[in-house]
Amino acid sequence: MYVFDFSTADGTDRDLLGGKGAGLATMTALGLPVPPGFTLSTEACRRYLVDGDVPADLWNEVRAARERLEAVTGRSLGANDGPPLLLSVRSGGKFSMPGMMDTVLNLGINEKVIGPLAEWADNEHFAWDAYRRFVQTYGKVVLRADGGRFENILTELRSTRGVDDDAALTADDLEQVTRRFQRIITDSGRKIPENPVDQLHSAIAAVFSSWTNRRAREYRRINQIDDNLGTACTVQMMVFGDLGDDSGTGVCFTRDPATGETGSYGDYLPNAQGEDVVAGIRNTLDLEDLAGRHPEHHAQLLDVMRTLEQHYSDMCDIEFTIERERLWILQTRVGKRTAQAAVQIAVDMADEGMIDRATALLRVEPTSLDVMLHPRIADGLDIEPLTVGLDASPGAASGVAVFSAGRAVEMSETGVDVVLVRWETNPDDIHGLAVAEGVLTSHGGKTSHAAVIARGMGKAAVTGAAEIDVQEAEGRFTVGIVSISEGDIITIDGSTGRVFVGELPLVDPDPSPELETLLEWADEVRRLGVRANADDGAGAAVARRWGAEGIGLARTEHMFLGHRLPIVRSIILNQDTRQALDDLVDIQTDDFTDLLEAMDGLPVIVRLLDPPLHEFLPDRISLLLERRNHPASSDTIELDRWIDAVTRLEETNPMMGLRGVRLGVIRPELYRAQVRAAMEATLRRLDAGGDPKIEIMIPLVSHESEFTHVLDIVNQEIEASAVEIDIPVGTMIEVPRAALQASALAVHADFFSFGTNDLTQMTYGISRDDAERAFLDQYVTEGVLPSNPFTHIDEVGVGRLVEIATRDGKVVRPDLEVGVCGEHGGDPKSIAFFHRVGLNYVSCSPPRVPTARLAAAQAALGKTFD
Amino acid sequence: MYVFDFSTADGTDRDLLGGKGAGLATMTALGLPVPPGFTLSTEACRRYLVDGDVPADLWNEVRAARERLEAVTGRSLGANDGPPLLLSVRSGGKFSMPGMMDTVLNLGINEKVIGPLAEWADNEHFAWDAYRRFVQTYGKVVLRADGGRFENILTELRSTRGVDDDAALTADDLEQVTRRFQRIITDSGRKIPENPVDQLHSAIAAVFSSWTNRRAREYRRINQIDDNLGTACTVQMMVFGDLGDDSGTGVCFTRDPATGETGSYGDYLPNAQGEDVVAGIRNTLDLEDLAGRHPEHHAQLLDVMRTLEQHYSDMCDIEFTIERERLWILQTRVGKRTAQAAVQIAVDMADEGMIDRATALLRVEPTSLDVMLHPRIADGLDIEPLTVGLDASPGAASGVAVFSAGRAVEMSETGVDVVLVRWETNPDDIHGLAVAEGVLTSHGGKTSHAAVIARGMGKAAVTGAAEIDVQEAEGRFTVGIVSISEGDIITIDGSTGRVFVGELPLVDPDPSPELETLLEWADEVRRLGVRANADDGAGAAVARRWGAEGIGLARTEHMFLGHRLPIVRSIILNQDTRQALDDLVDIQTDDFTDLLEAMDGLPVIVRLLDPPLHEFLPDRISLLLERRNHPASSDTIELDRWIDAVTRLEETNPMMGLRGVRLGVIRPELYRAQVRAAMEATLRRLDAGGDPKIEIMIPLVSHESEFTHVLDIVNQEIEASAVEIDIPVGTMIEVPRAALQASALAVHADFFSFGTNDLTQMTYGISRDDAERAFLDQYVTEGVLPSNPFTHIDEVGVGRLVEIATRDGKVVRPDLEVGVCGEHGGDPKSIAFFHRVGLNYVSCSPPRVPTARLAAAQAALGKTFD
Repeated sequence: MYVFDFSTADGTDRDLLGGKGAGLATMTALGLPVPPGFTLSTEACRRYLVDGDVPADLWNEVRAARERLEAVTGRSLGANDGPPLLLSVRSGGKFSMPGMMDTVLNLGINEKVIGPLAEWADNEHFAWDAYRRFVQTYGKVVLRADGGRFENILTELRSTRGVDDDAALTADDLEQVTRRFQRIITDSGRKIPENPVDQLHSAIAAVFSSWTNRRAREYRRINQIDDNLGTACTVQMMVFGDLGDDSGTGVCFTRDPATGETGSYGDYLPNAQGEDVVAGIRNTLDLEDLAGRHPEHHAQLLDVMRTLEQHYSDMCDIEFTIERERLWILQTRVGKRTAQAAVQIAVDMADEGMIDRATALLRVEPTSLDVMLHPRIADGLDIEPLTVGLDASPGAASGVAVFSAGRAVEMSETGVDVVLVRWETNPDDIHGLAVAEGVLTSHGGKTSHAAVIARGMGKAAVTGAAEIDVQEAEGRFTVGIVSISEGDIITIDGSTGRVFVGELPLVDPDPSPELETLLEWADEVRRLGVRANADDGAGAAVARRWGAEGIGLARTEHMFLGHRLPIVRSIILNQDTRQALDDLVDIQTDDFTDLLEAMDGLPVIVRLLDPPLHEFLPDRISLLLERRNHPASSDTIELDRWIDAVTRLEETNPMMGLRGVRLGVIRPELYRAQVRAAMEATLRRLDAGGDPKIEIMIPLVSHESEFTHVLDIVNQEIEASAVEIDIPVGTMIEVPRAALQASALAVHADFFSFGTNDLTQMTYGISRDDAERAFLDQYVTEGVLPSNPFTHIDEVGVGRLVEIATRDGKVVRPDLEVGVCGEHGGDPKSIAFFHRVGLNYVSCSPPRVPTARLAAAQAALGKTFD
Repeated sequence: MYVFDFSTADGTDRDLLGGKGAGLATMTALGLPVPPGFTLSTEACRRYLVDGDVPADLWNEVRAARERLEAVTGRSLGANDGPPLLLSVRSGGKFSMPGMMDTVLNLGINEKVIGPLAEWADNEHFAWDAYRRFVQTYGKVVLRADGGRFENILTELRSTRGVDDDAALTADDLEQVTRRFQRIITDSGRKIPENPVDQLHSAIAAVFSSWTNRRAREYRRINQIDDNLGTACTVQMMVFGDLGDDSGTGVCFTRDPATGETGSYGDYLPNAQGEDVVAGIRNTLDLEDLAGRHPEHHAQLLDVMRTLEQHYSDMCDIEFTIERERLWILQTRVGKRTAQAAVQIAVDMADEGMIDRATALLRVEPTSLDVMLHPRIADGLDIEPLTVGLDASPGAASGVAVFSAGRAVEMSETGVDVVLVRWETNPDDIHGLAVAEGVLTSHGGKTSHAAVIARGMGKAAVTGAAEIDVQEAEGRFTVGIVSISEGDIITIDGSTGRVFVGELPLVDPDPSPELETLLEWADEVRRLGVRANADDGAGAAVARRWGAEGIGLARTEHMFLGHRLPIVRSIILNQDTRQALDDLVDIQTDDFTDLLEAMDGLPVIVRLLDPPLHEFLPDRISLLLERRNHPASSDTIELDRWIDAVTRLEETNPMMGLRGVRLGVIRPELYRAQVRAAMEATLRRLDAGGDPKIEIMIPLVSHESEFTHVLDIVNQEIEASAVEIDIPVGTMIEVPRAALQASALAVHADFFSFGTNDLTQMTYGISRDDAERAFLDQYVTEGVLPSNPFTHIDEVGVGRLVEIATRDGKVVRPDLEVGVCGEHGGDPKSIAFFHRVGLNYVSCSPPRVPTARLAAAQAALGKTFD
């Protein structure tokens, strides 16, 4: 069976019915006023996509369902002797993919039906507009006609008539438009079938096919939705919000999707079909306006909202239409929301007793917390905004204005931050939105395409900034006499809707009280510790404020850059090494003291020097070219020394060369100096009455004897110092062999820390810097790899080594502390894996700490990933 | 207990007694005429080295043993009232380390003993020579006096007296020499104790200490002998071969150590102490001469040789002394031998029924077979040798003459082949011998230092070339009027003793019939298959003649070099790609046809292109410097294109970049062309009535979907061809992840081949090219790593991946063929490991095939490695 009436379907079976079909079945069962209809299952779609044709019985099932629908509604498809039945044919998969797939509305109109329809509605304008919409959509979706030509005709006509809105066109205008649309189609050798049943069958097939269109595939790739799920297809009686001013249509949320605040929230558009709201073509009214116009429908809608929120125990997104004096609910789903709203709603609902705390924790996507910690415009600036639009997606962003998705991609690839400026975005802009810092549109509400997508991606968005005139073809927008061209920098504030010229100072926000609450709940359930990777006192302080329980990785090489580079270079060149080493000790002592002060009482793991020495030297090619310009003279002696040093240290594969612990063996004076600095800093903090907990980590170990060799050196320096507290010394596990020989390492190492970036590189034999450009991106795009292994840990390969090393290490030393300090430490899917295999903690960049705390809690609550 | 009399010790306990002590105990038990004595165990040495002092009871045990010895011999240490007891104090570990450690002879002489000794011997010359030898050795070994000064005094005196030999000096001369030696010692503030017991104790301590001298450590490192074993110390009654012409000393072998031929073989030196033979100071007589001089002793010696060979079931090396009318046996051990001799002796002894075939197989060191396949001088050359010396170690070698070990190392590091030319080598020359192609000496017999070491290392050696006058200080040698200076090329033939001026053509030898026999026996017991890595028909033909059962790895990139490079470059630059690809197909078809013809009926695994494309392009720096010399003009357009291409393809870590299967994904046209060529060659061979068995191997796979992606491409080309036989397609396992995901790969791959070079690089995170110079050599020298993991497979790390992959792969596909094609495939220790973990075959370079066949047999016979 492939076809399910709303009235009998199982509203919990989203796999089979899709989100939309399940919602309609649920609402029907709840007794809400849903226009009747039926759903073709995702199974039908999958069969269609695999076999290239619908299953054998499908059209029989559809006929039976249609006949039941005609019986219930008392209307008939194609009827010319009474009110005709018009249908919506909509896509809807298990996971919402807003706007990505196709829909055909007003299906069932033909030359015979148009008359009775106008008669039923008592409204010629409505009938021809419905016909126009049907021809336009069917032509574009089913017959693949050029949608741009339809739009051009409408735009031109609106301009000729001097109106902004199709509603202001006459019925005659609309008839003429419909005829021109039909000619475009017939001129291209195609034709809309007159028989509404044929229309229905081909619309269903087109909806199924739209699962595999380019933008749907791109959306699924970005959102990691399985390509094999397929979409369901709902067929539903049309109800009309465009019968006149007594009608209308709207979208509402049971709580504010931007802030999470309680209280209804939504847009309403009188005398319109639903697509007019979503597409943002006309600016909408607030839901409060509906209370004024239709108080009884407004009250009924609030009842529906309460019913649905109670039923789903979650914030719902509802589409409704008022057809003359009757309220219809067309669709519901659990509503998309900003990160801030997700947190607020989860905490509020738990406080209200609607859900328990575990559910609240599982309701918030951990990576979305990043957004809340993204910059906002600094306080106290007295700057006039250029204009103000809708606060569509919170957060602030600066960047150069660009006017097409293609340019956004091109410029962002050169490392430039961009803000995408559009009249309104559409699904073809998805790749531009993905790379932009934010998006600004002149049209569309808070539920417009740009707003929905930007919130999902955690980008700042200002929509419906009606004062701006976007001239995409000219690459500029104007507000009055101010003109902003491509390349000019603007700043937008998606939390207030303000738009500024130029780059404004942005600051990091404080976590909201609700976020603090949620994270406290997370801390109560998580088993994994959360630390931060930070290299200086400032970073450590930020991390601590966000809940880091220590520093999992302080990279000492970052301390070697900038004005300290000459010291490091003189060590490498063996010029005056002793003085330079002493200078280095002094500098690193200050660095370590700051770190220990910021993390007083918490562990601070300092990794000794890791990268190849030549990373601190100038580029050889530049030196050689410079040398070529200077004939031999006294001036070139220094240059020649540099060339010699760089040449001597040059390596074919520096990632696998003289670095990490190998430096400790070959150039022990560097490691000795670093340990001396660590001990000196510890003494300073002890003298200051602090509680320094420094730990020393040796990178790139592959063999236990190379670890013990350097361990001896480290311990000599510790013993030579006046430090009397215990200083743990551990090893990175970032070379496959170290993982395979963890039991031998655990005999000597006080702790392990997985460097999963390098471990992934070596386990895959992939040099990340080279690979992403050369082949890895293409691998992921073409599906050769399911995902980039530097984003989510490769559980069966790299992860198997993590499991082996954790198990083997803990067999030898049951209290061995095992953590991870690669970028995977901030990735929720990877964190779930690290929880499962029994790590003690994850360490991530400071802004990722809240994400990691929540993800660790979700892992403890058993959250799974597909 | 640390001290064991020869007469009661367990002659099988080499661990405790060392080889020398065990041999003496064995011979004593066999009733052979062994001068009595006792052995201090290796345990005593180990305690001494760890504690810095001898164990508490040791001197008591030594006193008791000495008293037993005095009772047995009827002589007393330090006696001045009868024949005095003189002692030899010799080192001797479990494994022979000829000349590496110290020995003190003639111990017990002092001012009181010298008179009675001369009286007992009735020979003043003998007594003062013994005193001179004692002072010289004790001074050098125990008191660390400068041995060179002693030698200078002797050389000067011989010159003054116009004699060649110390035997020709008078007793007075020797007394004066002894006094001058004593003054050298006392001038340096040291003194030889008068008390013989003190002499004994300090000599024992010096022998123990000599375990850790520099050259002993170097020898152990080269020969992979455990540094913790320690040496035993034998204390034995001196017997004297230098009492006059009725006395003498010699070394003999129970079979010829150079050729393995049956029949006794040895050197004899009348009126000499044993050290004179080994040191090669005087040229020796053949053993046949002994039959003439001392027929009864010669017969007795032959009896001893038969007894010992029967006892040990092996060829023995025996030191003997005739003290006036009595034959004494001073030492025996299983004799060192050339590879050729080892094979001959093993096969002969098995044929004689002395040992079984398994023992015969285990008697030959597999890597020594390389030597037998080393070059010899081409036949039919009518060239007069410059001179002829002794055929001390077989094989021929050409190289520039160098006159010190240091220069040998320096020049060989520049890639030049060298032949080390010395008056005689000594243990300080070991590092020079290690890098030389061969060694030529003017002094020393076939049992001299140079001969023994060269045979052990498998180097060609000509010793005792008495016509040549080596002037090391001047860096030249002369033969009559011919002068050869450093840098001149010479050729030596260690199989005949001939020395030539200039570089003679060398050819590979045919395996001897005995080697063929031994390898046939090996084939009967081995379970591992043996294939060869060969890239052309000639290499494949050689490999097949040596017994390769197929090609385990044909590297197609080697076929891209030389005059074919322009074709490859034009493909990389996308110039006229179609024509270039067609050219490539034609060329590779010829290559593959040759391979398949040479290996007709046997599998030939062709690996598709592996290295990064930029390896086929010119060097970027050279291009940039060239470009800098040309201001922009039409001439530089081509140059700029090259620079662009090289820059575009440049990678930070090319080993882990766009290469192997990744090329197959990103540039599939290259792989397609290679498969087309493979199919074309197969068709040609089928048309010619051959039995081509080509297999396709994909390199650098890390993920199963990257394998299946390229597998599809390969199969498309196979299906598009007219080839109808089955073409297996398999994968290299050379990336750690492939090993960890072997079960997923085995679903699709017909075979696995471990590329253990890359697998070692990635598992260790070591880039071999960079690492050996930058740190790996130092790691091994300093003992940070036990051995270079590119020489012997790292069993617990890399090997664990091999085990995992083999097990996991065979679970999924029980008939999965699993081999290894890295350099480890020719290393016996690694082969034993591959046997243990259940591989199907190893593949190695063609000259290593006999080694691999024998090593595989030894593995099947359960040979273990320490």
